[in-house]
Amino acid sequence: MNMLTELADGARKASFTLAGASIQQKNDALCAIANALKQRSDEILAANAMDLAEAKKRGIKDAMQDRLTLTKDRIGAIAEGVLQVAALPDPVGEVIAMWKRPNGLTVGQKRVPIGVIGIIYEARPNVTVDAAVLCLKSSNAVILRGGSEAIHSNKALAGVMRDAIASAGLDSDCICLIEDTSRETAKEMMRLNGYIDVLIPRGGAGLIKTVLENASVPVIETGTGNCHVYVDGECDFDMAEAITVNAKVSRPSVCNAAETLLVDAAIASEFVPRIVAALQKNKVEVRGCERTKQLCPTVATACEEDYYTEYNDYIMALKVVAGIDEAITHINKYNTKHSEAIVTTNYAKAQKFLQEVDAAAVYVNASTRFTDGYEFGFGAEIGISTQKIHARGPMGLKELTTIKYIIYGNGQIR
Amino acid sequence: MNMLTELADGARKASFTLAGASIQQKNDALCAIANALKQRSDEILAANAMDLAEAKKRGIKDAMQDRLTLTKDRIGAIAEGVLQVAALPDPVGEVIAMWKRPNGLTVGQKRVPIGVIGIIYEARPNVTVDAAVLCLKSSNAVILRGGSEAIHSNKALAGVMRDAIASAGLDSDCICLIEDTSRETAKEMMRLNGYIDVLIPRGGAGLIKTVLENASVPVIETGTGNCHVYVDGECDFDMAEAITVNAKVSRPSVCNAAETLLVDAAIASEFVPRIVAALQKNKVEVRGCERTKQLCPTVATACEEDYYTEYNDYIMALKVVAGIDEAITHINKYNTKHSEAIVTTNYAKAQKFLQEVDAAAVYVNASTRFTDGYEFGFGAEIGISTQKIHARGPMGLKELTTIKYIIYGNGQIR
Repeated sequence: MNMLTELADGARKASFTLAGASIQQKNDALCAIANALKQRSDEILAANAMDLAEAKKRGIKDAMQDRLTLTKDRIGAIAEGVLQVAALPDPVGEVIAMWKRPNGLTVGQKRVPIGVIGIIYEARPNVTVDAAVLCLKSSNAVILRGGSEAIHSNKALAGVMRDAIASAGLDSDCICLIEDTSRETAKEMMRLNGYIDVLIPRGGAGLIKTVLENASVPVIETGTGNCHVYVDGECDFDMAEAITVNAKVSRPSVCNAAETLLVDAAIASEFVPRIVAALQKNKVEVRGCERTKQLCPTVATACEEDYYTEYNDYIMALKVVAGIDEAITHINKYNTKHSEAIVTTNYAKAQKFLQEVDAAAVYVNASTRFTDGYEFGFGAEIGISTQKIHARGPMGLKELTTIKYIIYGNGQIR
Repeated sequence: MNMLTELADGARKASFTLAGASIQQKNDALCAIANALKQRSDEILAANAMDLAEAKKRGIKDAMQDRLTLTKDRIGAIAEGVLQVAALPDPVGEVIAMWKRPNGLTVGQKRVPIGVIGIIYEARPNVTVDAAVLCLKSSNAVILRGGSEAIHSNKALAGVMRDAIASAGLDSDCICLIEDTSRETAKEMMRLNGYIDVLIPRGGAGLIKTVLENASVPVIETGTGNCHVYVDGECDFDMAEAITVNAKVSRPSVCNAAETLLVDAAIASEFVPRIVAALQKNKVEVRGCERTKQLCPTVATACEEDYYTEYNDYIMALKVVAGIDEAITHINKYNTKHSEAIVTTNYAKAQKFLQEVDAAAVYVNASTRFTDGYEFGFGAEIGISTQKIHARGPMGLKELTTIKYIIYGNGQIR
């Protein structure tokens, strides 16, 4: 056993004891974590300062440095988040269904923890706590592998959490941090079959691609969102404008922001100039199709590449389409199966869009920005799945569980 | 685009039209398949004869030749199975839950097809039909890749099904067969991200290992079962013997057969000689621990390796354990998380076993052999999942679906 498998074996063993922990024990551990984060914030901030000093030395850009930065207030907010998770209902133990078979066997489907969850992520140290406590609440051990940029912060945060867990009487190996941030170790982590039950990458497209290409353990693909708004010929223009602008500019860097606007040709001459003006007023660079450019000669040209791009920026592609069929075909060709919206007053077209668009979340007359565990009412979110198996869309605590069949017999043989 | 991606693209396109097909259309197609299989059985048998001739030429062993063989009766049974699938309820379209958010958004969770399912399997041509019709019933397009031993049979079966689907007005690309059985093409199939939504391997441990190691598309691991029976100190000996013998010998070649028997030390001197005699009477070779050998000097020695082995044969390891704790520890160390049984009259030990054993199906006082989609009442089975994400245990039609969030708004922005 090398160091990594030893760590993973510790997590696996902890997962068995954690599966038997009571709700009270888990919530005590969560409260202990929240308190410890606040009490030991100086220690955490000192470690964070080391990461920040190195980031500055290496000339890392400001946005990244901001993501890396912890402050007393930010630690307070993280601790507050931990208490919110403690207050959520326990997702494990529920018997979802139970039925009797003709031979007398009683078959039940019980919700149980997954076991050991691997999280691989980039520069945000808050993920270290957010992910760990969601795993703890759902009785899963977690193996965290954060980016090298945040290693001192992550070590401090994991240390604080591990001590708090032990003080609450649980195995500190419920939360394990891989301190070696080399790529080789990350790749080894992705192949820990028998130790890691599921691996959830949280980060940019590059990270997710690396995980998909290298992992042999099951993976839940998260994140990338090439989302669309389709403005139908029959719609309320004010609503269409409000939804489009909100979907693009309320937070362009996130995965549920819209990247391409599709406009029904029937209203193009009226709506396109209006929405281009509204977007430009909000500092959005519009890249249009031929028809868009006829109507608004100042906009840049959208090429095929644009329709595939998740800009994560103040840029939006705009394409005029012949109607709902072309809109749906375009979306199903270019999207990443994340979030898609139609703005329409037509009942049949609303239903058609809901039925035929292939995405985790399909909206009628609302912004794509609502695809989020909190907005959906789950009280928490570990990520947004863009694959189709296990979980689709925002993943809350329930999505960190699996089922086990429990069968009561009285001597049945087959 | 090469031939494989062209085929996969056809399947992807067919999956979109199939998602909109009515229950009636799908059932018509299934009935057409059942009829065509019977009507064109001579053609299928001729193709099968070619596979069998080659198998004989290559000296393939009898058990494998039997699995490869089709007869008029076997085709009739396959067609009968297709009609049974047609009679099952449609798994797609159900809105599992729908709730209103404080901002007025109505969020619904709707059951939808997964999209394109890849099935990679070995020498049994019946899988070609069984898997294809379960995918069709659940509105999924399927890409089949069977073994080279059955390629003529598979081509004939797929051809018959594709014609039948077209005759029922659906896109024949709903069922696609990869005719190139090279390993390179199989590996390419395992990396068709964007075309295949989930890959289900059906076959031996070697195939499953290859898929896990090479696939970048999501995989549902199926099959291998290193299952245990634990006979507790407090139990009905007749029941314990009946369950043990049934779990081992009723069909030793399948994944839900038991491989190791664990006996509580408290009853070892009485029960071990009795069960060894019963197993030997049923032609089972028993491989025992030291204590077993003291009690029954004729049995062979079980080494560490034995406890990890899925014999799939008339062989059973036998270990005397100190009690339920050692039994659970042994099981959680050596098992493949498939099916595990306890025989006991003690309430607390039954509950403890159900709680602490980590497996897809955990039994009290019943044979492990019941882990099966039909036995659980699902009416069908595409395989038995031994991983924890998406589906665990027997997978029926519901496990071939995913969800989509459908959100009804009236102008909400965030």
